Amino acid sequence: MRLAILGAAGMIGRKLAERIAASGKIGGRSVTALTLVDVIAPDVAKDFAGTRDAFAADLTAPGAAEQIIAARPEIIVHLAAIVSGEAEADMAKGYRVNLDGTRALLEAIAGVDDYCPRVIYASSLAVFGAPFPAKIPDAYHLTPLTSYGTQKAMGEMLLNDYSRRGLVDGIGIRFPTICIRPGKPNKAASSFYSGILREPLNGQEAILPVDDDTRHWFASPRAAVGYIEHAADLDTAPLGAQRCMTMPGVSATVGEQIEALRAVAGDAAVALIRRIPDPAVAAIVSGWPRDFDTARANALGFVAETSFQEIIEIYLEDEMGQKAQIGAPL
Amino acid sequence: MRLAILGAAGMIGRKLAERIAASGKIGGRSVTALTLVDVIAPDVAKDFAGTRDAFAADLTAPGAAEQIIAARPEIIVHLAAIVSGEAEADMAKGYRVNLDGTRALLEAIAGVDDYCPRVIYASSLAVFGAPFPAKIPDAYHLTPLTSYGTQKAMGEMLLNDYSRRGLVDGIGIRFPTICIRPGKPNKAASSFYSGILREPLNGQEAILPVDDDTRHWFASPRAAVGYIEHAADLDTAPLGAQRCMTMPGVSATVGEQIEALRAVAGDAAVALIRRIPDPAVAAIVSGWPRDFDTARANALGFVAETSFQEIIEIYLEDEMGQKAQIGAPL
Repeated sequence: MRLAILGAAGMIGRKLAERIAASGKIGGRSVTALTLVDVIAPDVAKDFAGTRDAFAADLTAPGAAEQIIAARPEIIVHLAAIVSGEAEADMAKGYRVNLDGTRALLEAIAGVDDYCPRVIYASSLAVFGAPFPAKIPDAYHLTPLTSYGTQKAMGEMLLNDYSRRGLVDGIGIRFPTICIRPGKPNKAASSFYSGILREPLNGQEAILPVDDDTRHWFASPRAAVGYIEHAADLDTAPLGAQRCMTMPGVSATVGEQIEALRAVAGDAAVALIRRIPDPAVAAIVSGWPRDFDTARANALGFVAETSFQEIIEIYLEDEMGQKAQIGAPL
Repeated sequence: MRLAILGAAGMIGRKLAERIAASGKIGGRSVTALTLVDVIAPDVAKDFAGTRDAFAADLTAPGAAEQIIAARPEIIVHLAAIVSGEAEADMAKGYRVNLDGTRALLEAIAGVDDYCPRVIYASSLAVFGAPFPAKIPDAYHLTPLTSYGTQKAMGEMLLNDYSRRGLVDGIGIRFPTICIRPGKPNKAASSFYSGILREPLNGQEAILPVDDDTRHWFASPRAAVGYIEHAADLDTAPLGAQRCMTMPGVSATVGEQIEALRAVAGDAAVALIRRIPDPAVAAIVSGWPRDFDTARANALGFVAETSFQEIIEIYLEDEMGQKAQIGAPL
């Protein structure tokens, strides 16, 4: 079975590709060929024992989508996107990549007879914006407050319609904010959510720009890869016409994040967090969802962490090579 | 003030244009110029005292959207669309006209500096499909079961995003099923909802293909024009980022429609309805919404009829030139 990853150079794409390369499987299915695509040629999964095609492509370039599906991957994981900040700053680019790129992929698939691959589409919490209930239910309307969120919501609609018509077998998964992201801080407004944990765990100072009672919805990178693995195996028939849903996660305040850090790494780590309020960041973050009732995804067997401490422990295991010793400072 | 109607040759477009021509106003505002556009040159509002520009244009043709807004209409009523059945039968055409056409209009407006017209966008109940609650609330997610409904929902998303960015001043109104449509039956699955009333009121036999307990959401053509007039006047600031909403209407079963017909036109009219069940039509209609809580539109001052009898009386007044005499057979 061939699997294609669009956006294979990104954080989740890399982790997914490496995991498949290591196991030769996704979920319960054997993977014998990988198509790895990004705007730069992905350098991941080099140890994959099967056929590995890795190349650079812009999904919106003429013929690119057709090239990507030329070898007829049975599963396509579509993670390629312009991220929130850039899609807001460059409206045309965001619509071109996030909307037109997704449409080009679906149209290319629809143009091939007797081909209906599983398309796993990465959607986002950004399809929801304030005001919303404290706990957003599955049937809540999509209320994006960014162009990125709008484009992701429109991609969900396309995925539903092309799936309803039997042209693709789509499933859209709305990722929680992924935490703890490995690597360096970035310019995303959400960067501090990982930074206030990652930097202290690495003995460095971190800046906290918002109040301790700011609440948000999280899952680990490992959970993110797990959603995709589960989506690859899932029987989509019970989904009906609504193919997209919010993934399970952990609702936590910044204060709860910090207490989880204290439990795992002690007071010394927590002391590395400096509070420097940034009203601009606080304003952006105040429009983000806080909590979800993910009954639908739960019933379908999607899982995530059940506590923020678990999210931190996964970072230690996956990124720092340490088995966490709960309560024992590092 | 210049007002443009896209889709001016359609039923609602014609009625709106004629009403503006007669009064020289929309809502409380004086209209001195009309731009009337459709795929055929609209022949309506010929008595309009102001400047009247009527021409044929395909909104998706290069330069067409720019031509339509060349005279900078302050209000644009966007009714142009491929209807449900055709959008389902010809997927490419539906996406081209309903999605790309709407996007071309918004992009053309965005391309003009210091120009932010009111854009009144005709959306549809087709953004909702089964399963849904008996009474759909304002915050319910959009669950289209047709490509037409998908395209209308995507147009809503675009309208919200372009409005949030200050590029247009949009308001999207989801029309109930308009009843009683004047003229001949058409091939739409919903055609019988008007036919079982219109044909008997004109002394002709009508066919009823569904059960009497089939429930749906209705408003008159006069109410449809009224929504647009109200949307033209409305202060959009309180709408925030969510510019689209379901319009008020009357939830009625086929049985209630028939009893309203009896009250207005007597047993002889009702006797002209022949029950010939059509499982295909019944299956389509079973996926359509039945009732709404339109609290948001109500609070903003949108109004519709409050009984089905009123809907029938409006048909008699507006289409047959008769003031209804309640309870007195025609």
